[in-house]
Amino acid sequence: MRHAYLDNSATTVTCPEAVQKAVELMTRCYGNPSSLHTLGIDAEKELNLARREVARLLGADTEEVIFTSGGTEGNNLAVLGGAAVKARQGRHAVTTAVEHSSVSAAFSQLEKEGWEVTRLVPDSRGILTAQAIAAACRDDTTLVSIMTVNNETGARFPIAETVPAVRRAAPRALIHTDAVQAAGKLPLKAARWGLDLMTASSHKLHGPKGCGALYIRKGIRLLPRMLGGGQEKGLRSGTEPMPAIAAFGAAAAAVPDFEEQGTLYRGLRTRLLEQLRPLENKVVFHLPEEGVPYIVNLSMPGLKSETLLHFLAERGVYVSSGSACSKGKKSPVLTALGLDPAEVDSALRISFSRYTVPEDVDQLASALLLASETLVRRRV
Amino acid sequence: MRHAYLDNSATTVTCPEAVQKAVELMTRCYGNPSSLHTLGIDAEKELNLARREVARLLGADTEEVIFTSGGTEGNNLAVLGGAAVKARQGRHAVTTAVEHSSVSAAFSQLEKEGWEVTRLVPDSRGILTAQAIAAACRDDTTLVSIMTVNNETGARFPIAETVPAVRRAAPRALIHTDAVQAAGKLPLKAARWGLDLMTASSHKLHGPKGCGALYIRKGIRLLPRMLGGGQEKGLRSGTEPMPAIAAFGAAAAAVPDFEEQGTLYRGLRTRLLEQLRPLENKVVFHLPEEGVPYIVNLSMPGLKSETLLHFLAERGVYVSSGSACSKGKKSPVLTALGLDPAEVDSALRISFSRYTVPEDVDQLASALLLASETLVRRRV
Repeated sequence: MRHAYLDNSATTVTCPEAVQKAVELMTRCYGNPSSLHTLGIDAEKELNLARREVARLLGADTEEVIFTSGGTEGNNLAVLGGAAVKARQGRHAVTTAVEHSSVSAAFSQLEKEGWEVTRLVPDSRGILTAQAIAAACRDDTTLVSIMTVNNETGARFPIAETVPAVRRAAPRALIHTDAVQAAGKLPLKAARWGLDLMTASSHKLHGPKGCGALYIRKGIRLLPRMLGGGQEKGLRSGTEPMPAIAAFGAAAAAVPDFEEQGTLYRGLRTRLLEQLRPLENKVVFHLPEEGVPYIVNLSMPGLKSETLLHFLAERGVYVSSGSACSKGKKSPVLTALGLDPAEVDSALRISFSRYTVPEDVDQLASALLLASETLVRRRV
Repeated sequence: MRHAYLDNSATTVTCPEAVQKAVELMTRCYGNPSSLHTLGIDAEKELNLARREVARLLGADTEEVIFTSGGTEGNNLAVLGGAAVKARQGRHAVTTAVEHSSVSAAFSQLEKEGWEVTRLVPDSRGILTAQAIAAACRDDTTLVSIMTVNNETGARFPIAETVPAVRRAAPRALIHTDAVQAAGKLPLKAARWGLDLMTASSHKLHGPKGCGALYIRKGIRLLPRMLGGGQEKGLRSGTEPMPAIAAFGAAAAAVPDFEEQGTLYRGLRTRLLEQLRPLENKVVFHLPEEGVPYIVNLSMPGLKSETLLHFLAERGVYVSSGSACSKGKKSPVLTALGLDPAEVDSALRISFSRYTVPEDVDQLASALLLASETLVRRRV
């Protein structure tokens, strides 16, 4: 059976360049970058090389990037490590109601510690404006975290415009963006946009799982959360996961032209929408007005997501019901967006990568058409 | 030039079984274990398989092991996550003065939060008895962390005897051991010894860097430090580093018989001591009475560690001056043990693995003999 992997927002296959690099760092170049001998120095060179490639991808200087174990650690360090430094200046934070759990759980932790957190809800078109974000800022706002691209709907938030607006409204605030679903697919300009912190993850852009990066603007201070040998300028102790880091660097270097990628994704999305036209009355698309073309969220009200997932998987089509991390639980993102419960219950997220081909979309569309014909709808 | 890698306590080469597994998890089986479709389920199977292998290595039940990003995260989670739960019952902790920085830094953090920490110093023979550890316990002792094997001297602490002694002296205390330098080289019996927590690291036993394990006895509660999707029973959120985890499992499964390993290491150590006999008056061995045979710490007073390291590296021999994490800084471990400063300044750590061959030892010994003849000694 042919396989159509359309769950690239959950994770991606590691690209050959990255696999090769990971193998090299496990075999020929296996030193500890903290070791002072040749093998250690060789590993350190690979660490710096990867840092340069990832920094370029984020639009940052090499020395502004540290490696973490992944997006979750990066988001935790940005929010909690930033809050720990800022707490004395004010304990109000602004974020969205649709952040990834690694951001929203960090803010819930801050609430337990006495912070007040404003969680902005995008409007029905999925839009959250820079003005709305700035308007939520107060005198005591010291932390603002707005994701670049939502992981379930693909809604894109206006980070570049948000930064100056927030700077005016809350000059002392640290500004962070979780760019995990954007890195490698959209051009990022951490420095030019004036951000303080930006998170990325290797395994969402064809690097291996087990590595992420955090952009930390020069002069920004965070309290480290991983304590020990003082690696990564003391901000992230622990022997560096070199196979994953070097492979992340290779994956970052292998990222193709963004315009080409955009053309590919828009083509795939258009193809999918066209092929699903026969289901016009049975499928609801949740396509935010400012959405990225590589995430398509849709519902088939009356059919449960899980039933659909299994039906599709049996036909070699892999998608998800929402964030992979939520493991089938009802999407808090779609719920926060005020969707009809029947739509939340039947939501599917389809996500492309540069390896997605038209045949993958065709296979998905055929399977969805078949599902609509054969699966029994429940009234809700 | 032939290479003699004798820095296996810093890191090890990844064994072929582990490399193969890592590649498989980056290519054929690249799913996110939280995904509900076939690719996700396949990844979850690999996760459980690895958990079983690592649990066996630690002497634990499968469900008592969680995966972390490495030894540092495991030690931080054990000490800080344990302390967060125990703080209300008492804020006194007992540890040693020679722990790895990821344990000692965690305790320094606790001191900032108002804890009192007793750091026991082993005697001049490197010995710390269970009685001494229990004697340091008080009514308000709620956390005890004693490493299994010291990473610089190879001193082995009596964990099995310590547990019942501490249970009597401080019944409410969580008992943790950092077994990073023991796992894969010595038989570990986390459950039988009655421990609450035990840390291990993949890359010290021929798995890749970027993964560790924490044994958490059934019923023991820790406060998680990585917040988000709730992976690893909510104790360690974040997409699992599957290539490293599965490879860690493969490396654990590939660990050879401990008796055979012991015979190998003792043979290598004896060979080294014999070959260095001509330097009898110029080399001081720091061999703890209860030391493991795979770590040999020695000094050549008058010659600086760094000079020696470079001299050896130029001849293809890779050793370290102490913990890799300390990156050439003066060893706090040897200093805590009360060694002569001239000995601390010239300390070398030689560490074997199952891939070490007699020729590696010969190459080291020849280079040390040459160093003694050619390098200029400084009076200190």
